[in-house]
Amino acid sequence: MDPSPVSRRSARIRAVTPYRLLDQYYSHSEYTRRRDDPTIIDFAFGNPHEMPGSAYIAALREVLTPRDKDWFAYKQYLPRAQEAAAAGLRRLLDVPFEPEDVLLTTGGFSAISVAMKSVADPGDEVIYSLPPWFMYEGLAIEAGLVPVKVRIDPETFDLDVDAIAAAITPRTRIVIVNTPNNPTGRIYPPATLKRLASVLDEASGRNGRRIYLISDEPYNRIVFDGTRFHSPVEFYPYTLLAYSYGKTHLAPGQRIGYIALPPSMPGRETMWQAIKDMTFTVGWAFPNAVMQYALPRLEQFSIDIGHLQRKRDLLVAALRDMGYRVQPPEGTFYLWVPSPIPDDLAFTAQLAKQDIFVLPGDMFEVPGFFRISLTANDDMIERSLAGFAAAIERSAVASPAG
Amino acid sequence: MDPSPVSRRSARIRAVTPYRLLDQYYSHSEYTRRRDDPTIIDFAFGNPHEMPGSAYIAALREVLTPRDKDWFAYKQYLPRAQEAAAAGLRRLLDVPFEPEDVLLTTGGFSAISVAMKSVADPGDEVIYSLPPWFMYEGLAIEAGLVPVKVRIDPETFDLDVDAIAAAITPRTRIVIVNTPNNPTGRIYPPATLKRLASVLDEASGRNGRRIYLISDEPYNRIVFDGTRFHSPVEFYPYTLLAYSYGKTHLAPGQRIGYIALPPSMPGRETMWQAIKDMTFTVGWAFPNAVMQYALPRLEQFSIDIGHLQRKRDLLVAALRDMGYRVQPPEGTFYLWVPSPIPDDLAFTAQLAKQDIFVLPGDMFEVPGFFRISLTANDDMIERSLAGFAAAIERSAVASPAG
Repeated sequence: MDPSPVSRRSARIRAVTPYRLLDQYYSHSEYTRRRDDPTIIDFAFGNPHEMPGSAYIAALREVLTPRDKDWFAYKQYLPRAQEAAAAGLRRLLDVPFEPEDVLLTTGGFSAISVAMKSVADPGDEVIYSLPPWFMYEGLAIEAGLVPVKVRIDPETFDLDVDAIAAAITPRTRIVIVNTPNNPTGRIYPPATLKRLASVLDEASGRNGRRIYLISDEPYNRIVFDGTRFHSPVEFYPYTLLAYSYGKTHLAPGQRIGYIALPPSMPGRETMWQAIKDMTFTVGWAFPNAVMQYALPRLEQFSIDIGHLQRKRDLLVAALRDMGYRVQPPEGTFYLWVPSPIPDDLAFTAQLAKQDIFVLPGDMFEVPGFFRISLTANDDMIERSLAGFAAAIERSAVASPAG
Repeated sequence: MDPSPVSRRSARIRAVTPYRLLDQYYSHSEYTRRRDDPTIIDFAFGNPHEMPGSAYIAALREVLTPRDKDWFAYKQYLPRAQEAAAAGLRRLLDVPFEPEDVLLTTGGFSAISVAMKSVADPGDEVIYSLPPWFMYEGLAIEAGLVPVKVRIDPETFDLDVDAIAAAITPRTRIVIVNTPNNPTGRIYPPATLKRLASVLDEASGRNGRRIYLISDEPYNRIVFDGTRFHSPVEFYPYTLLAYSYGKTHLAPGQRIGYIALPPSMPGRETMWQAIKDMTFTVGWAFPNAVMQYALPRLEQFSIDIGHLQRKRDLLVAALRDMGYRVQPPEGTFYLWVPSPIPDDLAFTAQLAKQDIFVLPGDMFEVPGFFRISLTANDDMIERSLAGFAAAIERSAVASPAG
């Protein structure tokens, strides 16, 4: 009798390193044991450390009162939700999105998974940059795709377009771009996105098969210093824009997001139908009725970006004073900090002894860094400073050349 | 340049007949045009035709007020939701489910999809009985599986265990059983389930590879005449029980359900981990936070089964008086009615002229029948009687031998 009760693909998914490390950190670590301890300083995940805002609660509460018999019936794409999402995109980007261009999903995970499967087949390659979002590899493996990883520029944190160009093969079907980037906080500039578009156009022609771009941009409303965000969709019409409201309201437990197709995408009708079919057959990944009704209100506000920016400024300034070589992020919740010693696991273990929990670069396949989530509250940030100072001082003593 | 913008698997999913017929009926038919017309009699889908009940609204409303900062944070398996679901299963079935045996999902679609992928690999065969739930084939094709279809007993509507046994090959990995059955309303008796278990045990031994059973039972609380429901999980420990709350509360737009593993399942720990991993990597198919908080309350009530039973009794008696050979369902929302003429498409078109919308057996790959959803309201049922009578009279005139 075959000794394994599970499928081979289950075994392959279990073997995905970033997913396993994430699961281990979240479910079987010192962090798991201490997560609810109020004395720790929790910079680990992009989870809330303050009570949910009243606007968010009100947005859900007001749509619980049914206005028709179908209020909680099966919901595919609620037109008023699509209209509000398209209007939000038009405010953000210079692309004339129409309501029907917005294909709603249960958030970013399913938007990326459905987008991958709608364009790519098992064996096709998907290129993305390290450090990546934890879940790209797991989603790609479940979809049967082959992950191909390149590095970003380690100094500027910009995309390394030449590295992407060099990684393209005849099997390449997708390039994922995540901007504003988790974990670096970088917003890729128009010049980079134009260069990438031209590389993808050229390679698609050479391959005789279009390379699609998935623009993973759940942080596109979380941008500092009044910077204007630019999406790859403005520069390359073969872009599937994946968005989630989970970061915008810091409420990732309530699942809603979308795939948006630019009106200029060639073959748009076929793509639209494929995405809708896939949203059914991956297991009904349309958002809950209540979340679809709430979407027009959810489009009208976000978490307090000014407060997030003040936390960024305070922490970046303090860390720099201590000797950390940290760059201020242009967007997202995160600081991506070079570890004062090359061994980021040792350094983050050192921080944990100071009750400070951050994620090691090792979890992002980029050792030598660690990630801080600015969703920590003011009190945690204040309390963290002594610990950060002690850790870098100790590292200087332990390894003066580090 | 490759002319198709979408993947080959997207094209395969588009070609799935039951899914395409469903999509066409729902989105591009006479029904689509008239769905919101109050003069029609809507027996088409298991959607509500009365306003949502106050208990359902209250169950959601009371959990919108956050009790901690993590209220809307990422939620995997909320222990109190698992406890309530396990207690509900223990009341229903003679199996000692524990909270951790319940792996929550966004409803039945994802429970079935995740269960399939956790045990089966592309190329593996999945056997199910016709008439089936519309989505089995689409979910199976997306998972890369090969659907193998057998008929139920056309007279008794019982599972044809011999037909299942004959359909098993060395590639068979899954048998799906749907009880209480949509569309026949049949609850498979313990004797049938025991025979099936013994067939699957024997065939697993012969194959040197375990055949899993997926028990799709979203209607297991919608049972008439005080009948005791029996699940395959009571008779075969290699059963993944898939449940959705969508039918129990007639609120399928709010997605929550689960896969339950019997404590006696061999290899249960490995299976548990595979299902959790898969729930991540299919695109975060954990239910929304609000739905998880609401689950303990949702376990305490259902739609009005007595009212549903009265609708069943009224309609079955009236249809029989007219000459329809309909059997009363033991559970579910549905009547599965032999068409008075062999051509169910012609007959249901005839009913549509009487403003009565039912689903033709053709959509279930079983011509010669049609399905009535008892979720229609009392007024619709009352108004339907003249039309049903007119249609069967006309069919007797048109084809006296039919």
